[in-house]
Amino acid sequence: MISSRDNQKIKDYIRLRDKRAAREDSGLFVLEGARMVSDALKENADLKCAYYTETAAFRFPSVTDALKDRLHEKAECVSEEVSQKLGDTSNPQGIYAVASRLDKFLPLDKIAYGGKYLILNSLRDPGNVGTVIRAADAVGVDGVYLCGCCDIYNPKTVRATMGSLFRVPLRDNADYKKTVSLMQNAGIAVYASVVDKDAEDLRGFDFPKSCAVVIGNEGNGLSKEDADICDAKLTIRMNGTIESLNAAAAATIFLWELTK
Amino acid sequence: MISSRDNQKIKDYIRLRDKRAAREDSGLFVLEGARMVSDALKENADLKCAYYTETAAFRFPSVTDALKDRLHEKAECVSEEVSQKLGDTSNPQGIYAVASRLDKFLPLDKIAYGGKYLILNSLRDPGNVGTVIRAADAVGVDGVYLCGCCDIYNPKTVRATMGSLFRVPLRDNADYKKTVSLMQNAGIAVYASVVDKDAEDLRGFDFPKSCAVVIGNEGNGLSKEDADICDAKLTIRMNGTIESLNAAAAATIFLWELTK
Repeated sequence: MISSRDNQKIKDYIRLRDKRAAREDSGLFVLEGARMVSDALKENADLKCAYYTETAAFRFPSVTDALKDRLHEKAECVSEEVSQKLGDTSNPQGIYAVASRLDKFLPLDKIAYGGKYLILNSLRDPGNVGTVIRAADAVGVDGVYLCGCCDIYNPKTVRATMGSLFRVPLRDNADYKKTVSLMQNAGIAVYASVVDKDAEDLRGFDFPKSCAVVIGNEGNGLSKEDADICDAKLTIRMNGTIESLNAAAAATIFLWELTK
Repeated sequence: MISSRDNQKIKDYIRLRDKRAAREDSGLFVLEGARMVSDALKENADLKCAYYTETAAFRFPSVTDALKDRLHEKAECVSEEVSQKLGDTSNPQGIYAVASRLDKFLPLDKIAYGGKYLILNSLRDPGNVGTVIRAADAVGVDGVYLCGCCDIYNPKTVRATMGSLFRVPLRDNADYKKTVSLMQNAGIAVYASVVDKDAEDLRGFDFPKSCAVVIGNEGNGLSKEDADICDAKLTIRMNGTIESLNAAAAATIFLWELTK
């Protein structure tokens, strides 16, 4: 049992949890909680190692047994004190794993006419990005492209996806202009979601068979330049004085309409 | 200038910020940030006092001037150190106010045929509740009823509403069964949002002119008992393995369809 908080494996885990650079350099990220680790096992994520407390082994035996079967001596028991240090939440369940990043499994050259896609441009809030990935999974899109967004392997994002991270085809760190032009070249209509009274109203809009929607930054929306390269601009007409829905809510409504 | 973190006014503010009981006993709650305080002024919220730093007075003069005009000696300058203590965010803007609670301004006897309503049942996440209130404001509903939910005056909820708290007609601490039966007696159809393959599909459903939707708890959804008293059950059909959208995303889609 690992009982020292200074153990190198524990330090490595915490660096991956806290530092985007560490995740990018190593190609690894961390998962926490019975549900998340169980989803990763179910979706055959490439797990490198795992840690669990005795309490977790008692409360979630099917998850910890599956970790031991899969990882053998790489699934290690840790003390409650070490678990408190590994946990990113105030009341951790005591199950942790390190997995390989999933990105690049949706190459840009896989973009194909017939699909429905979501493009996220400069979303900065980890919770928002996770929530949107979860909504994309729920309604069923063929791919999510993240351009200049926060790290999808941030623990907050991973948690907010509730396992959808392992299911939605997604491409991290995509170049925005290249993604849009590849779609347009494939005959896919690309729509910008904007806050603009002159843009076409989403209510009643009829999406073509194959299309993509671009959602912009939480605070500033999509830049004019980035909206202008799209085929058309669509807006969710607001009631009264409110300026906009939050980015995740707007994305959810667009996803719903897109996949109707 | 208030420069002591032990000043009684500062302690009172922090109690209101941190304790639901303190908010309920006093009928007051706290607001933070230039945008939120500015929205409160615009919507004529009943402000009791305010605090701001010299930096905030320099960065947001229109807001701090309006506070001084409205509150006179009840708008007080505080040191940066005190501001750090007042702030609920890691990088506060240095503007704070105390306001009277808004609830009970939507009495249950104001429920009227013709309206469209949202009923939140046992939502526990402050950010979710705030996001849903913001979405309700954006699409335009006639009222939001909160039954057994977390405190809408929690600073996280207030922040997530982005000022919609002051605009959406809402009723806190409503009794669920009473609210539903008052609506039904008024001829308003009440729909339960459920995760249930046998429920009617929201896609393509045609809401009547006057109706209400009930959204249940984030983890457990709506109890069978609470769903059964509604006129019908509706569901958002999910793709593949995902169990559900998060409560805020489901509420957003229902609000969108309801107000179409």
